[in-house]
Amino acid sequence: MKKNENMEDKPVLKMIPLGGLEQIGMNITAFEYGDSIMVVDCGMGFPEDDMLGVDLVIPDVSYLEENIDRVKGFVITHGHEDHIGALPYILKKVNVPVYATKLTIGIIAHKLEEHGLQDSVVTKVVSFSQTITLGDFHVEFIRTNHSIVDAAALAIYTPQGIIVHTGDFKVDYTPIFGDAIDLQRFGELGKKGVLALLCDSTNAERSGFTPSESTVGKTLASIFEEQKNKRIIVATFASNVDRVQQIINAAHKYERKVAIEGRSMVNIINTAIELERLSVPEDTLVELDELKNYPDEKTVIITTGSQGERLAALSRMAGGTHKKIMIGPRDAIIFSSHPIPGNEKAITKIINEIFMRGADVIFQDTHVSGHACQEEIKLIYALTRPKYAVPVHGEYKHLKANAKLAEQMGVDKDHIIILESGDVLNFKNGVASKDGRVQSGFVFVDGLGVGDVGNVVLRDRQRLSEDGIILLVMAMDAENRIVSGPEIVTRGFVYVKESDELLEDIHMLIDDTICEHFENEGGGRNKLKNSIKDAVSEFVWKRTKRRPMILPVILDID
Amino acid sequence: MKKNENMEDKPVLKMIPLGGLEQIGMNITAFEYGDSIMVVDCGMGFPEDDMLGVDLVIPDVSYLEENIDRVKGFVITHGHEDHIGALPYILKKVNVPVYATKLTIGIIAHKLEEHGLQDSVVTKVVSFSQTITLGDFHVEFIRTNHSIVDAAALAIYTPQGIIVHTGDFKVDYTPIFGDAIDLQRFGELGKKGVLALLCDSTNAERSGFTPSESTVGKTLASIFEEQKNKRIIVATFASNVDRVQQIINAAHKYERKVAIEGRSMVNIINTAIELERLSVPEDTLVELDELKNYPDEKTVIITTGSQGERLAALSRMAGGTHKKIMIGPRDAIIFSSHPIPGNEKAITKIINEIFMRGADVIFQDTHVSGHACQEEIKLIYALTRPKYAVPVHGEYKHLKANAKLAEQMGVDKDHIIILESGDVLNFKNGVASKDGRVQSGFVFVDGLGVGDVGNVVLRDRQRLSEDGIILLVMAMDAENRIVSGPEIVTRGFVYVKESDELLEDIHMLIDDTICEHFENEGGGRNKLKNSIKDAVSEFVWKRTKRRPMILPVILDID
Repeated sequence: MKKNENMEDKPVLKMIPLGGLEQIGMNITAFEYGDSIMVVDCGMGFPEDDMLGVDLVIPDVSYLEENIDRVKGFVITHGHEDHIGALPYILKKVNVPVYATKLTIGIIAHKLEEHGLQDSVVTKVVSFSQTITLGDFHVEFIRTNHSIVDAAALAIYTPQGIIVHTGDFKVDYTPIFGDAIDLQRFGELGKKGVLALLCDSTNAERSGFTPSESTVGKTLASIFEEQKNKRIIVATFASNVDRVQQIINAAHKYERKVAIEGRSMVNIINTAIELERLSVPEDTLVELDELKNYPDEKTVIITTGSQGERLAALSRMAGGTHKKIMIGPRDAIIFSSHPIPGNEKAITKIINEIFMRGADVIFQDTHVSGHACQEEIKLIYALTRPKYAVPVHGEYKHLKANAKLAEQMGVDKDHIIILESGDVLNFKNGVASKDGRVQSGFVFVDGLGVGDVGNVVLRDRQRLSEDGIILLVMAMDAENRIVSGPEIVTRGFVYVKESDELLEDIHMLIDDTICEHFENEGGGRNKLKNSIKDAVSEFVWKRTKRRPMILPVILDID
Repeated sequence: MKKNENMEDKPVLKMIPLGGLEQIGMNITAFEYGDSIMVVDCGMGFPEDDMLGVDLVIPDVSYLEENIDRVKGFVITHGHEDHIGALPYILKKVNVPVYATKLTIGIIAHKLEEHGLQDSVVTKVVSFSQTITLGDFHVEFIRTNHSIVDAAALAIYTPQGIIVHTGDFKVDYTPIFGDAIDLQRFGELGKKGVLALLCDSTNAERSGFTPSESTVGKTLASIFEEQKNKRIIVATFASNVDRVQQIINAAHKYERKVAIEGRSMVNIINTAIELERLSVPEDTLVELDELKNYPDEKTVIITTGSQGERLAALSRMAGGTHKKIMIGPRDAIIFSSHPIPGNEKAITKIINEIFMRGADVIFQDTHVSGHACQEEIKLIYALTRPKYAVPVHGEYKHLKANAKLAEQMGVDKDHIIILESGDVLNFKNGVASKDGRVQSGFVFVDGLGVGDVGNVVLRDRQRLSEDGIILLVMAMDAENRIVSGPEIVTRGFVYVKESDELLEDIHMLIDDTICEHFENEGGGRNKLKNSIKDAVSEFVWKRTKRRPMILPVILDID
């Protein structure tokens, strides 16, 4: 009895995901206990197709801003954009210390510098097995494997129990750098008792195991063996440090020089070399400009752009607009990546372009995922035996697939909780319950603007993109006589030179509408503008079945 | 000697693809011999991502228009949009008879009716093995298999030799309707001697054989068996008549009523039933409205929208905006289709929505392709043993893969010819050579407009979609004094209410620019407008890193 009473006096533990549960991206989850708030990850998201002109998406952290006095710090699981990308923007509003492993802090530090924040933000390197204290929370970093080194899972010790957050992980018994995931520690934590497991859902739909990253090395070596007479260009993710290591290894074995192309990749690779997370044999790495000093078949270029990104290096090479690299029949281009859903067409375009230049494209077996498949996810459930399962990191279908695995692994069906970003999940006396919501959502970054593009602006962009705009500009005097115009200007609507008749008709329609307007009720300028807009809109729809934006502007002349 | 001399007097045979070689879609190829031109297929293409607001794409047939007196007819291989979709548009300019098999003509007739062309266009049904004459050409229709019945390959007999065009095909020994592909006839033609083979390249990158359509029937039946207590909704392509047949068969077996939803599917299915290309057991098909008279678990809905099309029936059901069908926990939704590259994200969105409504999604093993894989393509090469191979129906990478197969199958490397749309390939005395180009390309259909949206309009739409527009409107008198304005109106640029300061600064900048303009050289209105545009453009870029369209309008007041 006494113990229970004590427990009931304790504050509840709140878990509040502010992103990451509607998409793969923008991961950020707050944990709150009494006066302590800590935040796991602070990622950016990629704009969806309907977010026209938006460069990137960051989470709405109003809740953190409102409670800034209680926020103790950000704990970052690893150095990928969907976990660190929003930091420079969010830290400007919520400036608290950032904790992460060595390479992760290295990459973050580079980002902070780009945003001029290097002197105003405190960052702290944490080792694996080390536990840090953030108010009432103690957070232990546990080694995992992923497609970037120094990836960590977290054991979050709270007065209500232990929460285990896997971060992004896979089980790799033969990783490229460092040791395999610390499965023993997951087991120990399970023995102690885990209140809730927050587990990566990315590959929860895929059966079996994700192969070891080192399997790619073997394939790469055999391709290098086959392509002895060609220059080799390998495209992969800028942040896949382990992959770059293996390409460098293969190049070294076959006595080729390696150049790195693509700003983001150069940054990360330099950081990884500096921090000894990447080991480059002497005289292997050269500058792009130095490649010309070696025969083509003795060189390798590692480049960004494997997802068909329009401005990335590979796209420029394929399109013939790269300043230094021309692709030709003596090149073999390896895509060491899988298409991320949505990028298929852009990638295909590049492949077609490469083929047209006479080069070979090699697509098979040179990529493995960095995320756990079903058997690995089950393994983590088996080791931790959590009371509650809260799938994270995925779209709804991924979370749902993870939930099914949790059920198979014996988690009570009522204890499997799929949240939406903004939901508040309370833990009290070992019992979880949803308890309302906090503000959350997307904040759009467009150029230098953060948050000044919202749904109204996007709706307008959508409309403009589909059918363009028609401007109807005129000047009117105080007696409502048109003294100049109406001038009709269109953009993105129709090729004007061939549409004289249509514009002429619109002209007459405006005159008629104005006459009618004043003959009838009359009314202010806004009413007149609306009448013109409606009349022209209807007319244009009937004639063209298009709905351009119609924008009347009436200047008043005294 | 004499024979050769005769041959040399003969006109050359020209093959001129006007589309279909840069994408999967918009198939149309002209054959020309002396005074005879015949055209195989007349398909539409789907707009690429950068063709903003474009509804569909049709081929530029200027060459046919210029030579209209010689055009004898269109020969259509089968009833899919990428082979017939442009007919109603092109026939308005090039009105010649259309020849095709029964179902194909049925589907075309429906299209012509929609466009009010039923009385002005001549269509003729051709049977398999029948040969028609078009000027100097004789064209034989050969039965093949595809994902729609009545698909035909063509043997085109010309004075320069026999051209075999496979159309879209696969080898299906156990098709749903009718007989297997007439492989014997391909063999016979090979024995006679085939000058050139134009072979479907769609699946040329895929090894092995495409499974028979009938394998899907077995999977469907087992899913129906498993889902006994649920309503079943199957999404597939509107035109996949054979698939619909199999769904109806499974429904009949499990005593379910079937309703079809989606206008395009209803049209095609009705045509197929009318022409006895689809056999529906009595009392199986019901109207959507009648479904409510039966228990959910005794009904099936076959619907369009398997590619995530935003306006199709499935998308409306998943989004909760369908007027008659609400998806819920008692539904199982089967995707009987594979994602077409580019549609992955839209499909995933729908799957997430369906899961959120508590329904099940079944994705596996309920689709096979309608196109030949590598072993089937090789079989056709083996049977026809063509002198020349001209891969068709695909992007460059598909054509290239087909070319590799041709080489493996013993076609002389110099006799494998990859063309671009617009290329002219001459055949003379059994020898092929490229000989210049004719006009070709995309014509955009947007609403009722055909061809009035071109690259300028698309470029404007792109710009507008990314950063919106800023209008700068003012009235000026003859002394170059501003008598009204400048009024600044923005759309799709920035949320105006939060950007007072920015607009205020632009205001001042315009005033300064105008002063400077007249203080210095002066010049006409256009020069002034350009000065304003440049100044505002630069200012906005510096302040926001965005490039909205800047549009100054100056009204002259007397």
